[in-house]
Amino acid sequence: MKTPQEYIDSLRKLNLVVYMFGKKVENVVDDPIIRPSMNAVAMTYSMALNPEYEGIMTATSHITGKKINRFTHIHQSVDDLVKKSKMGRLIGSLTGCCFQRCVGMDALNALSMTTYDIDKKHKTEYNKRFLKYLQYVQDNDLVCDGAMTDPKGDRSLPPHKQSDPDMFLRVVEERKDGIVVRGAKAHQTGAVNSHEVIVMPTIAMKEEDKDYAISFAMPSDAKGITYIMGRQSCDTRKLERGKIDQGNIAFGGHEALIVFDNVFVPWDRVFMHKEYDFSGQLVEQFASYHRQSYACKVGVGDVLIGAVQTVAEYNGADKASHVKDKIIEMNQLNETLYCGCIACASEGHREPSGTYYVNTLLANVHKQNVTRFPYEIARLAQDIAGGIMVTCPSEDDLKSSEVGRWVNKYFQAAKSVPTENRIRILRLIENLTLGSAAVGYLTESMHGAGSPQAQRIMIARLVNMKEKQKTAKKLAGISEEIGQDKEGQDIEECNHEDQ
Amino acid sequence: MKTPQEYIDSLRKLNLVVYMFGKKVENVVDDPIIRPSMNAVAMTYSMALNPEYEGIMTATSHITGKKINRFTHIHQSVDDLVKKSKMGRLIGSLTGCCFQRCVGMDALNALSMTTYDIDKKHKTEYNKRFLKYLQYVQDNDLVCDGAMTDPKGDRSLPPHKQSDPDMFLRVVEERKDGIVVRGAKAHQTGAVNSHEVIVMPTIAMKEEDKDYAISFAMPSDAKGITYIMGRQSCDTRKLERGKIDQGNIAFGGHEALIVFDNVFVPWDRVFMHKEYDFSGQLVEQFASYHRQSYACKVGVGDVLIGAVQTVAEYNGADKASHVKDKIIEMNQLNETLYCGCIACASEGHREPSGTYYVNTLLANVHKQNVTRFPYEIARLAQDIAGGIMVTCPSEDDLKSSEVGRWVNKYFQAAKSVPTENRIRILRLIENLTLGSAAVGYLTESMHGAGSPQAQRIMIARLVNMKEKQKTAKKLAGISEEIGQDKEGQDIEECNHEDQ
Amino acid sequence: MKTPQEYIDSLRKLNLVVYMFGKKVENVVDDPIIRPSMNAVAMTYSMALNPEYEGIMTATSHITGKKINRFTHIHQSVDDLVKKSKMGRLIGSLTGCCFQRCVGMDALNALSMTTYDIDKKHKTEYNKRFLKYLQYVQDNDLVCDGAMTDPKGDRSLPPHKQSDPDMFLRVVEERKDGIVVRGAKAHQTGAVNSHEVIVMPTIAMKEEDKDYAISFAMPSDAKGITYIMGRQSCDTRKLERGKIDQGNIAFGGHEALIVFDNVFVPWDRVFMHKEYDFSGQLVEQFASYHRQSYACKVGVGDVLIGAVQTVAEYNGADKASHVKDKIIEMNQLNETLYCGCIACASEGHREPSGTYYVNTLLANVHKQNVTRFPYEIARLAQDIAGGIMVTCPSEDDLKSSEVGRWVNKYFQAAKSVPTENRIRILRLIENLTLGSAAVGYLTESMHGAGSPQAQRIMIARLVNMKEKQKTAKKLAGISEEIGQDKEGQDIEECNHEDQ
Amino acid sequence: MKTPQEYIDSLRKLNLVVYMFGKKVENVVDDPIIRPSMNAVAMTYSMALNPEYEGIMTATSHITGKKINRFTHIHQSVDDLVKKSKMGRLIGSLTGCCFQRCVGMDALNALSMTTYDIDKKHKTEYNKRFLKYLQYVQDNDLVCDGAMTDPKGDRSLPPHKQSDPDMFLRVVEERKDGIVVRGAKAHQTGAVNSHEVIVMPTIAMKEEDKDYAISFAMPSDAKGITYIMGRQSCDTRKLERGKIDQGNIAFGGHEALIVFDNVFVPWDRVFMHKEYDFSGQLVEQFASYHRQSYACKVGVGDVLIGAVQTVAEYNGADKASHVKDKIIEMNQLNETLYCGCIACASEGHREPSGTYYVNTLLANVHKQNVTRFPYEIARLAQDIAGGIMVTCPSEDDLKSSEVGRWVNKYFQAAKSVPTENRIRILRLIENLTLGSAAVGYLTESMHGAGSPQAQRIMIARLVNMKEKQKTAKKLAGISEEIGQDKEGQDIEECNHEDQ
Repeated sequence: MKTPQEYIDSLRKLNLVVYMFGKKVENVVDDPIIRPSMNAVAMTYSMALNPEYEGIMTATSHITGKKINRFTHIHQSVDDLVKKSKMGRLIGSLTGCCFQRCVGMDALNALSMTTYDIDKKHKTEYNKRFLKYLQYVQDNDLVCDGAMTDPKGDRSLPPHKQSDPDMFLRVVEERKDGIVVRGAKAHQTGAVNSHEVIVMPTIAMKEEDKDYAISFAMPSDAKGITYIMGRQSCDTRKLERGKIDQGNIAFGGHEALIVFDNVFVPWDRVFMHKEYDFSGQLVEQFASYHRQSYACKVGVGDVLIGAVQTVAEYNGADKASHVKDKIIEMNQLNETLYCGCIACASEGHREPSGTYYVNTLLANVHKQNVTRFPYEIARLAQDIAGGIMVTCPSEDDLKSSEVGRWVNKYFQAAKSVPTENRIRILRLIENLTLGSAAVGYLTESMHGAGSPQAQRIMIARLVNMKEKQKTAKKLAGISEEIGQDKEGQDIEECNHEDQ
Repeated sequence: MKTPQEYIDSLRKLNLVVYMFGKKVENVVDDPIIRPSMNAVAMTYSMALNPEYEGIMTATSHITGKKINRFTHIHQSVDDLVKKSKMGRLIGSLTGCCFQRCVGMDALNALSMTTYDIDKKHKTEYNKRFLKYLQYVQDNDLVCDGAMTDPKGDRSLPPHKQSDPDMFLRVVEERKDGIVVRGAKAHQTGAVNSHEVIVMPTIAMKEEDKDYAISFAMPSDAKGITYIMGRQSCDTRKLERGKIDQGNIAFGGHEALIVFDNVFVPWDRVFMHKEYDFSGQLVEQFASYHRQSYACKVGVGDVLIGAVQTVAEYNGADKASHVKDKIIEMNQLNETLYCGCIACASEGHREPSGTYYVNTLLANVHKQNVTRFPYEIARLAQDIAGGIMVTCPSEDDLKSSEVGRWVNKYFQAAKSVPTENRIRILRLIENLTLGSAAVGYLTESMHGAGSPQAQRIMIARLVNMKEKQKTAKKLAGISEEIGQDKEGQDIEECNHEDQ
Repeated sequence: MKTPQEYIDSLRKLNLVVYMFGKKVENVVDDPIIRPSMNAVAMTYSMALNPEYEGIMTATSHITGKKINRFTHIHQSVDDLVKKSKMGRLIGSLTGCCFQRCVGMDALNALSMTTYDIDKKHKTEYNKRFLKYLQYVQDNDLVCDGAMTDPKGDRSLPPHKQSDPDMFLRVVEERKDGIVVRGAKAHQTGAVNSHEVIVMPTIAMKEEDKDYAISFAMPSDAKGITYIMGRQSCDTRKLERGKIDQGNIAFGGHEALIVFDNVFVPWDRVFMHKEYDFSGQLVEQFASYHRQSYACKVGVGDVLIGAVQTVAEYNGADKASHVKDKIIEMNQLNETLYCGCIACASEGHREPSGTYYVNTLLANVHKQNVTRFPYEIARLAQDIAGGIMVTCPSEDDLKSSEVGRWVNKYFQAAKSVPTENRIRILRLIENLTLGSAAVGYLTESMHGAGSPQAQRIMIARLVNMKEKQKTAKKLAGISEEIGQDKEGQDIEECNHEDQ
Repeated sequence: MKTPQEYIDSLRKLNLVVYMFGKKVENVVDDPIIRPSMNAVAMTYSMALNPEYEGIMTATSHITGKKINRFTHIHQSVDDLVKKSKMGRLIGSLTGCCFQRCVGMDALNALSMTTYDIDKKHKTEYNKRFLKYLQYVQDNDLVCDGAMTDPKGDRSLPPHKQSDPDMFLRVVEERKDGIVVRGAKAHQTGAVNSHEVIVMPTIAMKEEDKDYAISFAMPSDAKGITYIMGRQSCDTRKLERGKIDQGNIAFGGHEALIVFDNVFVPWDRVFMHKEYDFSGQLVEQFASYHRQSYACKVGVGDVLIGAVQTVAEYNGADKASHVKDKIIEMNQLNETLYCGCIACASEGHREPSGTYYVNTLLANVHKQNVTRFPYEIARLAQDIAGGIMVTCPSEDDLKSSEVGRWVNKYFQAAKSVPTENRIRILRLIENLTLGSAAVGYLTESMHGAGSPQAQRIMIARLVNMKEKQKTAKKLAGISEEIGQDKEGQDIEECNHEDQ
């Protein structure tokens, strides 16, 4: 396993083509806007080497038997699934942001199942290829970006009907040694911190779309790949002199559009090629794993709750009963989210490939709650933080020789707390509820791993409604169902035997 | 294990003193108001004999090695805890009501731990007594009522300060062969369907209250025990000729006040006697198990959702997008509850006594959600059911030779559905949202196993707030915490190494 | 204006055909299940004679100039509209139930506008007829049932396509002296307490449905009219000996199906006859007025809040901060409802007929909140009331010579409060949240004056979305809109003038 | 009345001492961060001159009889109060931000009542002074900053007990010609766009705090006054080259701390001087008016709803039923807020001074809803906007010669909509939900005019709980109340007369 330093060194060796604010970024690793997100990924390396977290952060490779970083592991048991959820909360609670590495883990696990199932039906050899690739990832402890979301153009049309055929990523040329692909993947969290990009289709497809039913992996600096960074709220605070106004002094996130401009992919890195009948399965499996991954937001919630308890103390308001009650409510919501990611894992099962897979219904239910509760937690946080969170002067004012004394004097609250500390914790809450981390904690919670409506469709499909109706009718005495089965007999038996 | 018939026969042999509507009930077993609740308990017997449910409904006694009903089992593993949650949902989903038997199971499990811990500290022999009693319960497959809630009188005073000393159950005489107790236990769900009553104290106590720190078990028809039945919404519909207006034609619940009027308890049935220092622990352990037990409401929710889907079809409204969306929301809420009872079980652990105990924090979080979501599910159910749920004529009108034809004609909706079926399913929804089952589904969800505020106090106590604050401060750069521990170093390392 | 006694005497003279529990009710006025609802209507008479309420409860007829009961008044000003909302809250707060008389007032006001508008277009004389009828109602201070909701059969089909043509009320014969109608009206609150029934169509119609586009008024005991009473939760408690378990000892509501079996209507009581193009308008106007009428639920909320504050004091819990906070929340929700019914009135306007009409958008917004907030208020009420609300023994037990002393002893809480009083207030809360008044406070709030989705459709239609989009685009600098209008210039002016 | 140009010219003549980012701002009027907020204030001038808005935006001075800007008017009728609410929504809906001028209007109106009442009790002459000052404000059409919130230091201590006596603004010297004051006012929205600062105390006070019971007005550039600007989310985007990423291309808000460093105030500008017994009244009256002023957020909500409808169309998702339903919900919440600000105005009344005053209870209820609903509206907005709102590249990328074609190509959705327009509307939604306008729409909605708990305390105080309890007891038959009053008789009469 790599050390954080080795991880960062390895990124330096990459030759990524990254654009931000209309200009090419010459030094990606040291760019002050990108660096905090890289720090968060680096935590996945340093924590794996920390004996305290070893049980959670590492696993034993089912291919090589070696100890590996859990982010490169294929889940071999329900316990692995549960540990994945705990790992998400843990790192979230130590970074206060998205640490980006789960998406690759989820892509690997989904591919471990889908490649196996394609082979079974189509007598292909994707799984073998995939396992070889997996070992490469495990041996080199790599960060993979799992790239699913296409630009999609006109939402009402399938890929092959789009006026611009590149609105979904596709094969444009098939060669002896591989394929050439074109298109783009949007909303790629942490893309430029990755060694590899694993591409998957974004929707279920029919035969007409088979050129779009494509999955493969490429080094992140492959020829033809360009990254265009997305803006985030308060992104340029990271360019400022001081650290205080950033809120989170160490960690952050980033988003990028990845453009594939006629990228060549050799066959041994292709994991699905026109097997459109498996496109839907791959999407669903990746999505389910990734909905579980929103365990991380519980950890970010921990940070926000901790910050709010601290600011309540700094404000001298922590003893007020309504403040205590609101903090309980924040915990209630946060722990309810935790229940969701634990339950979908502990109710997981083994798939034919041997990989363990989460309970799909509960993973969707979990993610649906994630699209709601962090917003309420953030609202309560703003309630307790007070208006000063958005009226507080800048770090430069605090340290100004002219007005610094006034900022220090008038923003002092609890006597023992330096004004600077109060401002620091307020900036962290601002960061998490309005600033750059709000992008990760709120909007990403809404849309990451699928927007809310996507989960609702799955929930409607996955609940066993027939079973529920059967009992309801039976209990209401509606005869079409009564007496037809065992439970019917049970009711009859209990109800009538002595009468 | 008993058959349902043997269970009912065994109840006939009891000599219970039960009052209802001011009169003594001469035949408890066949009383039409009580019987539906007895039918629900009988389901816990019939299902245990049904091979389909065997894995969930039965367990292997850790004392005798025999196959026993899970309701008499002491949890020996996390898997046992998870199965308990599943059993609750399952029976709830087949009866649409409270099946009453969990409270005894929870009392037995809590006592298995507390008696062990008392013995350890006080060199007593409660655990041995308890295990002997447990074997008797297991061997005879008995229903135990777990009786905790005292009347409490003036809520602001401890037991010994009450103007009426009986407001908490207490020892009034200590004899060679046992003790004499006086007091009452309120809100006893399913009390008159039980063979045994297991009494526990209701709050943490100090030395002054030691006469109240008492736990024991007695046969339900012991001398001096009187039951006074509580009223429920729509209770007397069960006395009417027809079954339709009952809503649930087979099952129901009941509540009773149990009065202990100088009841003698022999020593071998006493499990705590003035060890006031363990009163709080017993309460907390019982409460945590019992909060988990609200898994059953997920099952009742299943019935309500099934009924609502059915009525939507009967009304011809099941294709409307808002109806579909509301049913998804009902499922989302119901499955979120399921996550709670699964998570608190799967995160359980082994206590020194060997008994497995739920995660207390998550059990409280789960129960807190139970005090909310069923109300919203019920509101959505009433939305979809339509106003007819509360304006529909009686079964007697439906069957009347004079107006029956009009009821049949004008309450017909979807052509293929007999009006009677539509009315039946509406009555089931009424039963669950306003009627006698609403008492169990809603108000009991609110107050059973502790009112909402009780859980909030526990949540405040159980979350690790210090840990959350530590990271928040670290991320905000507040120096009191930085660099003091490993994670601090991690952050430093990630953040600064190349700079 | 009639006295309450005269009102009740006038009902005795009616010859209503009423069925309940499959039997004809011989003495409607003194029937114990019906009587509480009649008492509530009687309050609309007694309060009008009470000088304290005169300003709210009475008005000056715009036809005769005489002082009349406001329930028979056509709104002549915004102040009239506002007073109508206040009257609703006031009577609701004194009866704790539905007082049934608003529906007739809303029908009269809607007809005062629609008959005028039909005449204008079709050169008919409905308005003249209507005003004559109105004077009769005012002079005799009558209660009118406004009957709109048809059974509707298959919801996906219009009236003329129903397999049973009577699923919407229709003209079956046209005669020289009048028309013959057949059909039914469902969910008729307070129907059997009325002197008159005013029938209106239930949906917008096209030409094919013109036989269904019909409005008229008939005496409630006209030949061919039959009432079939609906059941309510806990209805038969009103038949019991004591009063305590009823909860509300004086007032209640009722619902009925009205069957029109070939009823002859003379021309001078016909207000719309096949003018299908005005069916939609009449429905919308009646619905808007009637949505405003849900002001009454604010009054019922007042009773519930008062009961909850009282039970908190009786329980000795009124000082607990969470109890105080929940009661504040109940008030917050209740007063938000009040804002809705006041705002839709104060934003009202004069229609061509001279009648003042509420703001339709806000009336719908108000009613939509009524479908939600009472449920949350009720949930909070159950929280504070405690589990005893659903486990408390009957009045007969309380007064029993055998167990009464125990009920008295063990259900005593705050020392100074007789147990009976505590039980009485608990029964009132039960009545309002689970019992017969819950039908009126909750389910009627959901479905009365249109189910929630009906309001949402209206809201979507009534908000000025184009205007909102225009400014949004302007502020975003989207050029299709900029500079085209005055405000555009304003922005330009403010933004650029010195630059 | 001034033109917008005259307003801006008048600001240029001021000699304000403003600090931002640690430096003195030399040209306040043209500062790119401050200017958008000034533009919003300028709208209050331009709209007053626009005949279309004249009725709402202007009024007739009750002192001079001249036509004046409504923002300088003392409310003379209920209609004035209602128009104030409508004006707030209107300007909010045209600027999409806080236009800052209401706070001065609210201060003037509160002082018009409190100075009158002080004079009455203490035989002082504040009201005369105030009216002279008012005429000066009206004649010169000035913007006044109403400055209430002190830094407050240790929240648990009153002013005179603070370790730093300046934590509340106070008189430090009393001179023949006036007083000298010291202290600060925090959270001053739009402070540097004002001609005048009107200072008021921030809490009810006792005699010991009389040096703090002080109210006065001063020119905003008086000697000793310093402004320190607060930071806002995304504030520095206003410094960037392009306009697109700002979101709102024209308008914004700002916040400042105002420091009073020994400022001399002549007697004719002092409106309260140590009359501590009126401090609480002034706070309450100002707060109530200012809670009504949150009508403006309804207007900002209009902009957000318009933006969301537009982005739904641009995304090609506006026909999806869940999207339509979410937009209905946004409107439902927004119009419920509107009901609040209309109702508290239309229920207003005349005070002894002749000024019309809002209904205090409903103004608090309104503001309480404002602390909640905008957050839910914003959440729904983010749901519909899609993840692209936070992953979209910068304007510089869009216009880049290197990557602009890709941004244009891959962020195109509905074919007819230029990518730039889609990005513009997304940036507006970002601005309103995460960016600089979110400060005004969300956090200011939470804390402006008092934090949520402040309203709850008022609500608890203002509801007539005794009245509610009286009826509840009466309806439950609790005898302590029955028969004691008229309504009791009414019930008796209705209930028993024929029995």
